[in-house]
Amino acid sequence: MENERVKHVEGGNGLGLDDEREEMMMKKEEGLSIERMFENQTVPSWRKQLTFRAFAVSFVLSVAFCFIVMKLNLTTGIIPSLNVSAGLLGFLFVKIWTEGLAKSGMLRQPFTRQENTVIQTCVVASSGIAFSGGFGSYLFGMSQRIVEQSEHKKDGLDYMNPRLGWMIGFLFVVSFLGLFSVVPLRKIMIIDFKLTYPSGTATAHLINSFHTPEGAKLAKKQVRSLGKFFSFSFLWGFFQWFFTAGEDCGFASFPTFGLKAYKYKFFFDFSATYVGVGMICPHIINISLLVGGILSWAIMWPLIETKKGDWYPSDLPSSNLHGLQGYKVFIAIALILGDGLYNFFKVLSQTIAGLFTKLQERNRNQQIPVTENSSSPSSKSQSYDDQRRTQLFLKDQIPAWFAISGYVAIAAVSTAVLPHLFHQLKWYYIIVIYIFAPALAFCNAFGCGLTDWSLASTYGKLAIFTIGAWAGASNGGILGGLAACGVMMNIVSTASDLMQDFKTGYLTLASPRSMFVSQVIGTAMGCVISPCVFWIFYNAFPDLGLPSSEYPAPYATVYYNIAKLGVEGFSALPNNCLNLCYGFFAAAIFINLIRDGVGKKRARFIPLPMAMAIPFYLGSYFAIDMCFGSLILFIWQKINRAKADAFGPAVASGLICGDGIWTLPSSVLALAGVKPPICMKFISRGTNNRIDQFLGS
Amino acid sequence: MENERVKHVEGGNGLGLDDEREEMMMKKEEGLSIERMFENQTVPSWRKQLTFRAFAVSFVLSVAFCFIVMKLNLTTGIIPSLNVSAGLLGFLFVKIWTEGLAKSGMLRQPFTRQENTVIQTCVVASSGIAFSGGFGSYLFGMSQRIVEQSEHKKDGLDYMNPRLGWMIGFLFVVSFLGLFSVVPLRKIMIIDFKLTYPSGTATAHLINSFHTPEGAKLAKKQVRSLGKFFSFSFLWGFFQWFFTAGEDCGFASFPTFGLKAYKYKFFFDFSATYVGVGMICPHIINISLLVGGILSWAIMWPLIETKKGDWYPSDLPSSNLHGLQGYKVFIAIALILGDGLYNFFKVLSQTIAGLFTKLQERNRNQQIPVTENSSSPSSKSQSYDDQRRTQLFLKDQIPAWFAISGYVAIAAVSTAVLPHLFHQLKWYYIIVIYIFAPALAFCNAFGCGLTDWSLASTYGKLAIFTIGAWAGASNGGILGGLAACGVMMNIVSTASDLMQDFKTGYLTLASPRSMFVSQVIGTAMGCVISPCVFWIFYNAFPDLGLPSSEYPAPYATVYYNIAKLGVEGFSALPNNCLNLCYGFFAAAIFINLIRDGVGKKRARFIPLPMAMAIPFYLGSYFAIDMCFGSLILFIWQKINRAKADAFGPAVASGLICGDGIWTLPSSVLALAGVKPPICMKFISRGTNNRIDQFLGS
Repeated sequence: MENERVKHVEGGNGLGLDDEREEMMMKKEEGLSIERMFENQTVPSWRKQLTFRAFAVSFVLSVAFCFIVMKLNLTTGIIPSLNVSAGLLGFLFVKIWTEGLAKSGMLRQPFTRQENTVIQTCVVASSGIAFSGGFGSYLFGMSQRIVEQSEHKKDGLDYMNPRLGWMIGFLFVVSFLGLFSVVPLRKIMIIDFKLTYPSGTATAHLINSFHTPEGAKLAKKQVRSLGKFFSFSFLWGFFQWFFTAGEDCGFASFPTFGLKAYKYKFFFDFSATYVGVGMICPHIINISLLVGGILSWAIMWPLIETKKGDWYPSDLPSSNLHGLQGYKVFIAIALILGDGLYNFFKVLSQTIAGLFTKLQERNRNQQIPVTENSSSPSSKSQSYDDQRRTQLFLKDQIPAWFAISGYVAIAAVSTAVLPHLFHQLKWYYIIVIYIFAPALAFCNAFGCGLTDWSLASTYGKLAIFTIGAWAGASNGGILGGLAACGVMMNIVSTASDLMQDFKTGYLTLASPRSMFVSQVIGTAMGCVISPCVFWIFYNAFPDLGLPSSEYPAPYATVYYNIAKLGVEGFSALPNNCLNLCYGFFAAAIFINLIRDGVGKKRARFIPLPMAMAIPFYLGSYFAIDMCFGSLILFIWQKINRAKADAFGPAVASGLICGDGIWTLPSSVLALAGVKPPICMKFISRGTNNRIDQFLGS
Repeated sequence: MENERVKHVEGGNGLGLDDEREEMMMKKEEGLSIERMFENQTVPSWRKQLTFRAFAVSFVLSVAFCFIVMKLNLTTGIIPSLNVSAGLLGFLFVKIWTEGLAKSGMLRQPFTRQENTVIQTCVVASSGIAFSGGFGSYLFGMSQRIVEQSEHKKDGLDYMNPRLGWMIGFLFVVSFLGLFSVVPLRKIMIIDFKLTYPSGTATAHLINSFHTPEGAKLAKKQVRSLGKFFSFSFLWGFFQWFFTAGEDCGFASFPTFGLKAYKYKFFFDFSATYVGVGMICPHIINISLLVGGILSWAIMWPLIETKKGDWYPSDLPSSNLHGLQGYKVFIAIALILGDGLYNFFKVLSQTIAGLFTKLQERNRNQQIPVTENSSSPSSKSQSYDDQRRTQLFLKDQIPAWFAISGYVAIAAVSTAVLPHLFHQLKWYYIIVIYIFAPALAFCNAFGCGLTDWSLASTYGKLAIFTIGAWAGASNGGILGGLAACGVMMNIVSTASDLMQDFKTGYLTLASPRSMFVSQVIGTAMGCVISPCVFWIFYNAFPDLGLPSSEYPAPYATVYYNIAKLGVEGFSALPNNCLNLCYGFFAAAIFINLIRDGVGKKRARFIPLPMAMAIPFYLGSYFAIDMCFGSLILFIWQKINRAKADAFGPAVASGLICGDGIWTLPSSVLALAGVKPPICMKFISRGTNNRIDQFLGS
């Protein structure tokens, strides 16, 4: 979720299609006009695109995806794109629904691709909140459990434990601003600038393909293999559960490479989710994770451990940030900040340069007659597809006054409400954020359209530092900074999501109005569902957030410490940690410079610093799962490239969703106090002898 | 190894091809003369068929297969046919050898199918000794460890612990008699009677097919998939090893269906061997095993356990035969004896009837001119294949005086030596056995030719009862009976093996002389290799033979108790056990009557009593493995019948061989005192809490 760079790993954007496949799709489109194929189908009015069944299906999928995203948030923080699954499953559900009705003769409205787009938009908006709500990062970072881990004093700590009430309230007042802030710019971005939005485009192609006869056939096959692996993964999760009575029990503690490697978190933990995530993520991400894991847990931490008593006191518990844990957290932060900063400036400069070019083009085009208002200088006359799409996109307008008054109204409510929720967040901080927010939201939506990277979490960190420094440590700057991060992240993240969806809508002839309404409804759903799901996790797993837990929520600690760093400076760091941090910060920038310098072909083999940072804190076990998934896909591609490309994402989605959905009954079981019956324990021979004696006596 | 009925499970005969496939092969042969295809190839002289490389390869394969058979002997006693593997691997090894030499220009003699047959004969003869040597049955049944389990007194027991010296000596003096006893009858059985010998025929077809160009291509592919699954299975065995520090550790103790089911031995134990065995065995065998396991461990034993203190004393250790263990062992024996007896009389009557018909036919044919001496009344004139095969089969003669004098000489040595090895076995018992043995050997070889069932172990049990009763309990009748069983089994088993090989030789134009010599050399190899391999197991696993061990050697206890039953009567049985035994004895006969009564089509769905008996003693875990293998094959057949039939046996052989060969390094590790580092333990939640407290304190 951290990774601006890892586009396919970012919550809610990135379809998981690699560039080649995208290109293939583009080429196919060039050869053949898509809209000609759909010519006979009438496009329903925007009100008719918003059907009850679409939102019913969206709700079910939202709950399911929210569980998945929440699980990922709280385990490693790496969230793959679920758009393929959302598209596929949405298609499947409505298809069953409409075919059932058609058989009983009660079908009044056929299933259109516009409706499919509405579902996909709603589900992505809703599950996006599970990411931008910060349940694994800033929001949970305010809780007593995380704060206590990072501070050495026990009294007088400033924290804010999660409660269902304030979380839902907070999300409602901050999540809609992003939508209103960029709505007026949709024509400029989509029609005039013709921004790419690779993920949105790919999703649109997927949806279009589903609604052609051959596409529906392939989709059916894909759904079948998704279903097969979904069941497998679900049953596997269920089977694993039986063996997890007690700590360090079960497959998740399997010392695949021996007990010593297990101690340094090198093991395969049999998680279907991460094998699936590995199959969706580009190979280089998985390799980066593994390289990061080896660099940290196989080389650096054991070396630093030898300095115990010298660099840091030897009597600290392992989770104390003044000990080894401090090196893990702060070096990871240094890498993340270095990479984030580099890319922030890179994307910002690209944005400004791009904006400049696009504006020039626009001015030039406006001197040409209206029928030829295409922004691309190469296409002098518009294609049939472009004409039809533009016509339908411009048909349903959302008035600017509506957007502006909506923004102002919500901002006013928000400014009034937020200081009551977080007394550290003064009303004038909020007003400042809301003045700058539309500009940043535009930047993010524009950058995302160009590069497919949403920089939401970087803007969030920017807010942490500025508001934190402004407030100062004595005035609760840490919590104020984290709250400001939430406000900022929600605005810029929903803004870029909305613009992606407009692009998808443009390509599937869905009305901007229905997109907007769907996004609003999806966001509202997410504002309720996400906190509820988090609340279930929080209550079902009492050790949530502790480093030894099944759900360590790594970014919660990272975010808290970023805020602390911003407010208090480097006072908390153990010996030599600051030097190491400088080194890794510089290394992150340097690696990025090399990646951009050597050209696209060779950059494929250079690891990404952002991805390398995650295992610094968590260890390599999920990286090994993901590399295993990568390996499976790689071999599959070698055997049958076409099949692997067509069914790989479906298989991966099946694995992720099955395991993710299993967390639903698993947390229900935990809440009901049903405990698994067996412990599969891994012990050394010596300990085993002692235990056998103990049990024998 | 017990199963006369389970033809594909019997050691050393049965190719694992099902009837349909055999039929297919037969049909193919009918359409096309095989010997025409090989017309251009000259058949080497019998001396040239016996090459050094053939015996070198045979030796290597013999050692490998001996480990596999020994492992199976000592775990469950179910031994699938390894002929496919022997044929395939023999082909592979010599092919590599000859191609290597051919490239270096040093190849003097090309690889012929006769040589392939020599290898296959030698390997089967040698690994046959691992079965008929009784290391899992009569021979190990004499040892102190087994005797002490079955007797309640501790002193004055009559036992004979395995020692390398006497085992090799014993095998050498008894194993060659079978060969000499039936050699003179080869022409009558193969040419005059034209007995089928289904396994020998199938093996010959396999070898013939390897040496045609397309056959070699398929064989190469089969070898590749065998190799793939071999490596997988070997590595899986290696991986499992790491987690087996201590008792009840590792995958073999995985309570797949929960701890309660595990207590009653229902679990999947992740054994690649038995999954492979299940793939080779006919489905009905696997189902029979499972039915037997459910009947005994899920129904009967729990019921009998409720009578604890009533039917049998409640203070006995679980391995005591006067307790529950007695019911397990004796009810299994009752089933085995009932089934064995039924089939003994069935095959005997078929043998006598068949013999009568064949002799009549022969007399009739001898009045017809010599060129038309075919025994089949339908084929008036011999086919080209028959002519050529008969010509080559009759070319190399083995004189009758050689066979008879060989038999007498070995019998004399044997009579002189055996009483020194087993003082309970008087010289006059041995002479009586050797007088009747040739007749029984002929019966077994003839019956096997008709039905493919070798009744070796039934003849062995016959010897146990007769010699045991003759000697009486006070004169060491139990051990005498077991030794007599060994003498008898070795004779009849090698006799039928030899005749199978003559059939294979006849169909591949291998000379009877080279077959005989290969069998003699193979037997000699087996007489040395098998005891050595057993010796390694015996020393490497100190709890070998105990019911709780990884290697429980179930039939050792069963054989000892059969002998005891024969000598002492029913005095040792706990309450009501005898009645249950009568019931199951009758049920075994009844089920067989039904199987024979309802016709072949419906008999496929009626379980085999012999197979049902094995899990009575051991539990169902290996039956679950085997059913899993069966299920895999079944699904594979549904998806792609042709591929499953062509590659199923190769995959299964790979699984069996890989795991089997792993026992070689595993026992070396055990002998060297290298112990696995980790214990994967399965404990209940309650126990786990106690252990965590214990380890914490």
